[in-house]
Amino acid sequence: MYLTHALHRALQQAPDRTMTVCGDRVRTTREVVDRVARLAAAFQGLGVNVDDRVGLLALNSDHHQEFFFASWWMGAVAHPLNTRWAAAEIAYALTDSGTEVLLVDDSFAALGPELRERAPVLQTLVYCGDGPTPEGMLNYEELLAAFEPVPDLRRGGDNVAFLLYTGGTTGTPKGVRVTDRGLQTSMMSSLITTGAALPDGVNLLTAPLFHIGALTGWYAQNLVGGTLVFLPKFTPEGALEAIKEHRVTSTTLVPVMVQMICNHPDLGSYDLSGVQRVTYGGAGSPESLLRLAMKVFPTARFTQGYGMTETCVLTSLNHEDHVRGGARLRSAGRATPAIELAVVGKDGQRLPVGEVGEVVTRGDHLMAGYWDKPELTAQTVRDGWLHTGDGGYLDEDGYLYIVDRLKDMIITGGENVYSAEVENAVAAHSAVASCVVIGVPDDHWGERVHAVIVLKPGHTATPEEIRAHAKTLIAGYKTPRTVEFVDSMPLSAAGKILKRELRAARANG
Amino acid sequence: MYLTHALHRALQQAPDRTMTVCGDRVRTTREVVDRVARLAAAFQGLGVNVDDRVGLLALNSDHHQEFFFASWWMGAVAHPLNTRWAAAEIAYALTDSGTEVLLVDDSFAALGPELRERAPVLQTLVYCGDGPTPEGMLNYEELLAAFEPVPDLRRGGDNVAFLLYTGGTTGTPKGVRVTDRGLQTSMMSSLITTGAALPDGVNLLTAPLFHIGALTGWYAQNLVGGTLVFLPKFTPEGALEAIKEHRVTSTTLVPVMVQMICNHPDLGSYDLSGVQRVTYGGAGSPESLLRLAMKVFPTARFTQGYGMTETCVLTSLNHEDHVRGGARLRSAGRATPAIELAVVGKDGQRLPVGEVGEVVTRGDHLMAGYWDKPELTAQTVRDGWLHTGDGGYLDEDGYLYIVDRLKDMIITGGENVYSAEVENAVAAHSAVASCVVIGVPDDHWGERVHAVIVLKPGHTATPEEIRAHAKTLIAGYKTPRTVEFVDSMPLSAAGKILKRELRAARANG
Repeated sequence: MYLTHALHRALQQAPDRTMTVCGDRVRTTREVVDRVARLAAAFQGLGVNVDDRVGLLALNSDHHQEFFFASWWMGAVAHPLNTRWAAAEIAYALTDSGTEVLLVDDSFAALGPELRERAPVLQTLVYCGDGPTPEGMLNYEELLAAFEPVPDLRRGGDNVAFLLYTGGTTGTPKGVRVTDRGLQTSMMSSLITTGAALPDGVNLLTAPLFHIGALTGWYAQNLVGGTLVFLPKFTPEGALEAIKEHRVTSTTLVPVMVQMICNHPDLGSYDLSGVQRVTYGGAGSPESLLRLAMKVFPTARFTQGYGMTETCVLTSLNHEDHVRGGARLRSAGRATPAIELAVVGKDGQRLPVGEVGEVVTRGDHLMAGYWDKPELTAQTVRDGWLHTGDGGYLDEDGYLYIVDRLKDMIITGGENVYSAEVENAVAAHSAVASCVVIGVPDDHWGERVHAVIVLKPGHTATPEEIRAHAKTLIAGYKTPRTVEFVDSMPLSAAGKILKRELRAARANG
Repeated sequence: MYLTHALHRALQQAPDRTMTVCGDRVRTTREVVDRVARLAAAFQGLGVNVDDRVGLLALNSDHHQEFFFASWWMGAVAHPLNTRWAAAEIAYALTDSGTEVLLVDDSFAALGPELRERAPVLQTLVYCGDGPTPEGMLNYEELLAAFEPVPDLRRGGDNVAFLLYTGGTTGTPKGVRVTDRGLQTSMMSSLITTGAALPDGVNLLTAPLFHIGALTGWYAQNLVGGTLVFLPKFTPEGALEAIKEHRVTSTTLVPVMVQMICNHPDLGSYDLSGVQRVTYGGAGSPESLLRLAMKVFPTARFTQGYGMTETCVLTSLNHEDHVRGGARLRSAGRATPAIELAVVGKDGQRLPVGEVGEVVTRGDHLMAGYWDKPELTAQTVRDGWLHTGDGGYLDEDGYLYIVDRLKDMIITGGENVYSAEVENAVAAHSAVASCVVIGVPDDHWGERVHAVIVLKPGHTATPEEIRAHAKTLIAGYKTPRTVEFVDSMPLSAAGKILKRELRAARANG
C-alpha cells in the first residue's frame, strides 16, 4: 500500500469526475493528478528530498489536495500548520521540524517576513493566493507551469505521511508522526464500521485541514473515491449553501459547528436530505445537542469518534446507537476491527467492566512517535499501548465511556467527580449553550465543583436554577456548588474549549 | 494487527453471543476462546513450534473456527487440506509442507493409515469426530480437557496465516502462503466496498473451508464480529434450512451452489428475505443464472469477486452494478481501495482501455510466495505485480472484463475467440444447465470452437438448435462448430469445472 494509491485508482475509474471544488475552481481527477505530479517536481526542484518536511499555512482549499499528494508523490512529509496559532508558535513548529519550504495563501502571506525572521530554517516561501506574488516569494501556479510531471515514488507502509503539531488543550506543542500504515488502518477500520465516506460521494471539508479529524475525513473520501468540496472557513451559511449546491453526502463537524448550524435562523430553508453521514469529533458532546443535530440532518447516520492525533483519530467509534437513537448516545463507542482498546489501572493491569481507569489503545493506527522527542514517546507508548491520559470505563458490551481527562477529575469531599458527567447534566438545561465544569481550590471541600456557562442568545438563568436542574439528574455532591456565566469560552485552534485556561484563571478559587 | 484480534474484540464486545453453530453444537464467544487457548496449548504439547504447519482434513465444522485460531494463537501456520483430493494428493501436500500434526474428522479418519504410509512426515493424528477414537490417534476433546489455556502470542503482520495448496484447475499442486497482512488488506478493502459480512451478522459457511473464497468469507465475519454457522456439506436443502433456522444474513456460494438452490423444487416454501449479502466466487458465471439468483434472494446485495488464492481472493469486486441490476453484470468489477489492478501486454506495458492483455495486480493482498518454490514465485510475481495468467480488458471506468485464461483463448482461422464469451452465449439457451467451450485441434481451422454441454433435467436440444441460438448473440466465427452433450462436468475440489480435463480428452480433435 502507498499513500498516493487513491489518485491512481481514481485515474483508472473516474478520470473525468470532478475531484476538487473550491469556490469557482472545479478540477477533474486527470487535472488534479497532473498538477500533483508537477508540484512534486517543483518540490524536488526547490531542493526537497525524500523524508524532508514541506509546510502549508493556509485556510482550507483545493491546494490542500494538491499539496498533500504532491508531498507524498515525491516522498516528503506533509506538514500542515495550525492556522489559529500565533507567528511565534508557527515559527516554533517550522524550526522544530526543520521545514524549509512553506506554502502560504492570501490569509497568511503577510506573515511571511515575520516567519522568516523567527524561523531562519525557512528557505523558500511559495505563495498560492489569488493576488500579486509578494516580494521574495515564488508563485504556486508559475511553479506548476515551469515543471514537468515526475513519476510517483509510491511511498507507503511505515513512511511518515503527516507531521502534525498538537498542543491545543495540553502543554508544549509536539509533532506527531502519522504513518501511511496508521492512516490506512485507521480509515479502513472506521469505514468498515461507519461507511462515513461514501464511494463516489461528495465530502464537505469545513473543519480545518491541519487537524487529524478533518484530515482523516479528507483521506477517507479519497480512499473510496469521490469529490472533495473545500470551504476556506466555517460559517453556518457557507456550510449550508455548500451542502445544497454540491449535493454533499458526507461531512465532518466539530461540536461547535454542529451547534452553529442547529442554531441558524434560516435553517428551515435548506434541504439537507442529501447528507447521509455526519462525523463529529470529540467525546462528550452534550446529548441534547446531538439529538437536535439528528433532527436537523434527518437522513444522516451520525458517527462519533473518540481518538486523538497520536491514534490517527481512532480509538473507538459509535454509530450503531446513533442509528437506533439509543441509550448509548453518550458512549464514545467500541473498538473497531484491527484496533485494540482497554482500560487499565495505575499498575497497567486491565480493569473489570465499569471501573474507571486510563484508556489505552494498541494497533497499527498508532503514530510512529513524536518528532524528536524519544522520551515523551516512550512515556506515551509503553509495551505497544498508547496511554491516552483520558479516564474512562467499559460496559459489558465493550462500549467505552470517557469520564474525563485523568487530570480533569475533581476530588471534592473525598468523592471522585467526573466533570464531563456534570457538564452533560448542566448542558441539558434549555438555556445553556455550552458549559465547562472544573474543580477549583476550596478550603472546605479540597476542590469545589464549579460550572462556567455560556447561555443561549435571548435566554436567562440563575445559578440556583442551574443547580436545581442539575440536581434532578445527578447526585448532590456532583452538583456545581458555584455557577458562573460568561459571554464565550476560550477555544483551541481545533475548536475545543480550553479547560486549562479556565482553570488557570480560577486557580485561587 | 494480529490474527487473533477478532477473538479478543468479540470477548470485549459480545462475550456471551453465539459464536459458532454446528448442528446441535452451539458455543458462545467465551467458550470458543477458552477452547482455542486450550487447543493452542495442546499443539504446543504435541511439539508444534512457531511457524510449523498444522493440518486439518475435515468437512466444514466448528472445529475449523477452533483450529484456525488455535494455530495462530500459538504461532503456527494453519494448513487446511483439500477434502476432495485423493490420498496421494493429500499425502503430497503433507509431505511437501512438512505437516506433522493433522486433525481428521469422521469423514477422513479411515484414511489415517494410508496417509501415515504415504506421508511418513506425519507424527500425530488427532481425531475430532463423534465416534470412538481410532487406534493410534489422539482425541480432540480429551486434548482440550488435558491442557490449560496458554497466552496468545498475537502473531500478525508478515507472518503466514494459511498454507493453501492450489492446483484445482491448473498443473501441479503448490502451497500458497497467505499472510496476516494479506488477509487484513484483502478483507478490509472488500468490506469497505461491499459490506459482505455484516457486523453482528450470521454467516452461513457452506463452501469448503480449504478454499480461499470460503476462508475469506469466514475471516471477514470474524473481523466484524458475528455468528458462524458451519454446514458440513453443501446440499440445497441443508443450505435453505440453515438460512431459515439461523436467520442467516450473509453467505458465500460458488456458482454451482447458486444453481442448485435456484433449481430446487421447494424453493418457494423458504423465506430467504433475511439474506442481505451473497458473495459468489469466480468470474464468468452466466448472466442468466445470476439474474435468477437475484430473484431468489430478493433482499440480497450480490458481490462477485475476481481473484485467486495467490491474491487472497481479491483483485476486483463488482457490486454496484448488481445493486442497480445494471449492464455491467458480467464485469469482474473494479479495483477496491488499497488494491492495484492493471492489464499489460507481453512487454509488461499497460494496455489502453479495451485492449485484451494479461491481468496483473499489486498490493499487500498478495501472497508471501509459494511454499518452497522460489523460482515459480519469481515467475509469478515480478516487480511487485502478480501475473494472473488471465486475459482481460478494462473499460473507461476501470471495470475489468475477464475474457479467458490466456491459455484458454482459442485461435480459429486466425481470429481470437474468448471461450468465456461463447460459453455465456450458449448458456443463455433455456435448455442449457452448464457449458464449457474449448479449442480442439482442427485440420482446416487450426483450432475449432467446440462446446461441451450439460442440459437441464427434462430438457432437450440439438447441436443445430444450440448453434442457431448462439449465432443470434455472437459472431459466426465465434459460434461453436461442434457441440457435444455430456451428463456431467469434471469438477475441481472447489467446484470449478476442469477445463483442462475436457481439453485433454479431446486433444485429438
